[in-house]
Amino acid sequence: MRALVTGASGFIGRQVVPHLVAAGHEVHAIGRSAPTTNDGATWHRTDLLDHDATRRTVAIVAPEAVLHLAWFAVPGEYWTSPKNLDWVLASLQLAKDLAAAGARRLVVAGTCAEYDLAGGVCDEERTALHPATPYAKAKHGLHVALAGAAGTLGLDVAWARIFYLYGPHEPPPRLVSSVARALLAGEPAPVSRGRQVRDFLDVRDVGSALAALLVSDVAGPVNVASGRPVSIAEVAMTLGRLAGAPDLIRLGAIADRPGDPLVVVGDVRRLLEEVGWSPTIELEQGLEHALRWWSGEG
Amino acid sequence: MRALVTGASGFIGRQVVPHLVAAGHEVHAIGRSAPTTNDGATWHRTDLLDHDATRRTVAIVAPEAVLHLAWFAVPGEYWTSPKNLDWVLASLQLAKDLAAAGARRLVVAGTCAEYDLAGGVCDEERTALHPATPYAKAKHGLHVALAGAAGTLGLDVAWARIFYLYGPHEPPPRLVSSVARALLAGEPAPVSRGRQVRDFLDVRDVGSALAALLVSDVAGPVNVASGRPVSIAEVAMTLGRLAGAPDLIRLGAIADRPGDPLVVVGDVRRLLEEVGWSPTIELEQGLEHALRWWSGEG
Repeated sequence: MRALVTGASGFIGRQVVPHLVAAGHEVHAIGRSAPTTNDGATWHRTDLLDHDATRRTVAIVAPEAVLHLAWFAVPGEYWTSPKNLDWVLASLQLAKDLAAAGARRLVVAGTCAEYDLAGGVCDEERTALHPATPYAKAKHGLHVALAGAAGTLGLDVAWARIFYLYGPHEPPPRLVSSVARALLAGEPAPVSRGRQVRDFLDVRDVGSALAALLVSDVAGPVNVASGRPVSIAEVAMTLGRLAGAPDLIRLGAIADRPGDPLVVVGDVRRLLEEVGWSPTIELEQGLEHALRWWSGEG
Repeated sequence: MRALVTGASGFIGRQVVPHLVAAGHEVHAIGRSAPTTNDGATWHRTDLLDHDATRRTVAIVAPEAVLHLAWFAVPGEYWTSPKNLDWVLASLQLAKDLAAAGARRLVVAGTCAEYDLAGGVCDEERTALHPATPYAKAKHGLHVALAGAAGTLGLDVAWARIFYLYGPHEPPPRLVSSVARALLAGEPAPVSRGRQVRDFLDVRDVGSALAALLVSDVAGPVNVASGRPVSIAEVAMTLGRLAGAPDLIRLGAIADRPGDPLVVVGDVRRLLEEVGWSPTIELEQGLEHALRWWSGEG
């Protein structure tokens, strides 16, 4: 299969390409920075916000299946950035271009933040959708519009609702990356009380899940999650123990965010039964790997 | 206020412009055909699917408030047309252009078909959203994406969920227009059993409601409906009686559409209390006017 991955040099994208190459697919990649070593993919320098340039690349590659991960993702900014609208526009235009170039399948990165997070365990069919932020609204609006257009475009569209993740190249101000870096520096790692229950996947598993989803024929929303609830406190304390410095974990040093939902966990029936994928990296293994990566030994 | 109306020559749009002109606003209009008589608006020939042309017109007009009604609306085709996606793209681009030109307010035509129609009375806050057709998904996806972008664009966005309507210039294959034309031709008017309960407004009232919404400061979704449930059978029988030919109404001559919801009625609290608008045309008056219009006396 000829596959195209956008956002291919990003936190998630870089974990997908090797799976597709190893499975024997012809992989084309669009990303901000091509790898310095040959990864088996053909890299294209294309600004996806430039619609004409994107159309040209899509016409040249003529991919059969596309995994669209590219988005504005600067930590701390992306939740409310005006660039979310630019990416909705670019993504809808990309879908049109792909259909015109003969593509049959499009998988796009969505977010668990599309759900009404008051609900706890999020199910693709039954949980109400209530995106609260500009980012989540942009993603969800894109999903609804794409779902409406899929039939006339002749595209099977799958929508990967990605939950919480961690691992190599994680942008710094997030939970695992910030705690890991503090521990490795021998400094206290301030955390909230950590009672919130979340659903974490190692980003390497997210990459393998998205590769599996891309080559499957599953359409519609699919949670990409572990299905295994874990508290923020447990994640932090595990990191502290693995780093040999449990005393540096300062639970309660950061105030709980008002309105932060208590439980956000993905129902993974579709991922397990329909896509046929399940996680391979246990949380403790993954956190150990992340610590090693942040220490420069990864 | 300097206002811009798109789709201004359409079924609804033509009813809005006179209200805004009469209220003393500077009205600019984009439509497929300018009226042959001076209606007090400045008409612009602009293809809204041509993004560059649209940007130029918006920059020249520099409207403060915009009512965006234009969409692909060919009866029988619009529910499933690929052009719905083009209109999502054009509408998002229009919103960006408006913000860049200094607009402060944008009101867009949505549809009651965004709601989960199993519910009966549709409330903007409480009724689940479950658009089923490509048209309704395109409109709803646009709404969600626009709601997400409104803050960063500096635009107040109101979203008019328009229910059922009838009146002058109604596109032919719809309920009131088809029954009225059959009656006026002295031919039988086949109708379903007509047990479905709906919410009908005279399009002249819809025009006045949208003008009121545009000059208000109400944001978010607002049902544009009568709040007065009426069965399809009652609408048809009233037309038959008004035309002096009740025997021509053939209830049950058309099969019920499978899955057609039993009750689709709008909760109009926001329209009445927040916008401060209420209908002025009773159903019987409106239907009589529609009959006259179809007979060429309107």
